[in-house]
Amino acid sequence: MVIKMTEIINKKLKNYILQLKGDTTELAKAMDYSLNAGGKRLRPQLVLEFAALCGGKPENALPIACAIEMIHTYSLIHDDLPCMDNDDYRRGKPSNHKRFGQSTALLAGDALLTLAFEVALNDEAVEKLGLEPARSCAFELAKAAGANGMCMGQALDLKHEGSKITAKVLEEIHAKKTGALISASCVMGCIAAEATVDEVEAARQYGQKLGLCFQIIDDVLDVTSTAETLGKPIGSDIASGKTTYVTLFGVDKCLKLADKLTTEALELLQSFNGNTEPLVNLTKTLLARDK
Amino acid sequence: MVIKMTEIINKKLKNYILQLKGDTTELAKAMDYSLNAGGKRLRPQLVLEFAALCGGKPENALPIACAIEMIHTYSLIHDDLPCMDNDDYRRGKPSNHKRFGQSTALLAGDALLTLAFEVALNDEAVEKLGLEPARSCAFELAKAAGANGMCMGQALDLKHEGSKITAKVLEEIHAKKTGALISASCVMGCIAAEATVDEVEAARQYGQKLGLCFQIIDDVLDVTSTAETLGKPIGSDIASGKTTYVTLFGVDKCLKLADKLTTEALELLQSFNGNTEPLVNLTKTLLARDK
Repeated sequence: MVIKMTEIINKKLKNYILQLKGDTTELAKAMDYSLNAGGKRLRPQLVLEFAALCGGKPENALPIACAIEMIHTYSLIHDDLPCMDNDDYRRGKPSNHKRFGQSTALLAGDALLTLAFEVALNDEAVEKLGLEPARSCAFELAKAAGANGMCMGQALDLKHEGSKITAKVLEEIHAKKTGALISASCVMGCIAAEATVDEVEAARQYGQKLGLCFQIIDDVLDVTSTAETLGKPIGSDIASGKTTYVTLFGVDKCLKLADKLTTEALELLQSFNGNTEPLVNLTKTLLARDK
Repeated sequence: MVIKMTEIINKKLKNYILQLKGDTTELAKAMDYSLNAGGKRLRPQLVLEFAALCGGKPENALPIACAIEMIHTYSLIHDDLPCMDNDDYRRGKPSNHKRFGQSTALLAGDALLTLAFEVALNDEAVEKLGLEPARSCAFELAKAAGANGMCMGQALDLKHEGSKITAKVLEEIHAKKTGALISASCVMGCIAAEATVDEVEAARQYGQKLGLCFQIIDDVLDVTSTAETLGKPIGSDIASGKTTYVTLFGVDKCLKLADKLTTEALELLQSFNGNTEPLVNLTKTLLARDK
């Protein structure tokens, strides 16, 4: 099911780019380059799986699933820019600005962020989701991505760059920087299926736990994986003097923490009446991933 | 009326920043710095005036009026970045990245773009506008700002940088880069007042003419004004070898063209039944402006 789902997501994402009138321009090429660079599609999968879990039709949630992947992709493009993390590689390929230049990369990020709201609010989305769920999803998206969510996480990260930080601050950074969008994915899936308030709340908490677990595993892989598997140089966090879960707690304790968070996330899934198997599998796969 | 209106807009914009939980952070400060740097508030004024013209309450359109100003402001912040126009000054003050650094400026732009959709889709906007007009306005906003609108205009501008271009290409660049957002302001005002399809169409065309006229006057002021009045160095377009309306046609022909567009814009206002006086005045003021 997971494979088939990512194929549907990939096809739809490609389609949105093809629909841009200027799809042969550098801008559309740059957007397409990063949007279709082999991402895991974790966030859209969460949208679709939570929609299914709450009794909705996953295909109706496809536009907002694509919208959140566009936002995730824009954040990676802007993150990689020289004035931010200055990363030359992403998923084993040159990062957007290495391939298209900084100005086009900047615009491609801006345009993907904007396109996310366009596809979440267009006639197709409204027809599939209904007017209020479409509005509500787009609103969740904006909150999660904005100045109290992902952008704030980035700003906190910048603020503490190069200085030792506590576990509490690190958790706050990741809760905003990664957690907000992952959590919003789960919430939007529920909204798309017109789930109950309790279900939405459980999904939000599940997403927060999964997001933190995801980040801890990322930090672990930075020291235990290989460059070939990760598609980017390993040990880069350590080399740059960055505080990570590994520098704070070491690999063993990180793995235990990830295990605990996974267990808690799985428990939250039990509050749902639907078939939790796909999400249980997805949760476990993320814990055991090697890239 | 114009003065009072800009005061209401300024107060509301300030309020949105104060509502950010992290309003004492660098990110919020950077957002506030550019959002409240003394802009003309042309776009929000157009939203409110068209709402009034079509029989709506301007105060109901205030959230979307602020949303479009946030998008305009983000575009200025990103435009000024070193990888784009590399401008050190904006409205007589250091540009955002000169004041806060490139990474914070990048994030402030991203966060303002995202906040625009948050305030256009939140409970207050939906209560004031109704669900479908709120959705429709946010959708217009995304289309106008995105890869077929403002971002495309920027991309076209980049593509032709340093090369001679025709009047047709220059017009296309400006129609996307400036025209799309100005036109959307007029359209959103109409939508907020639940105007007829014909009124929306007339507003769209009015906005396109006004947007082009606005740009032509900008090009003229770049050679005829003073640095003190403009708040930025004059002659910068000429110095950078940029093709402008002035380099293509000269100042006299530009003023005639601006006059013609203003007349056409004023004619379009005659299709409305409401009191056109405030918009007639606004249109004429823009033609006669010195900054």
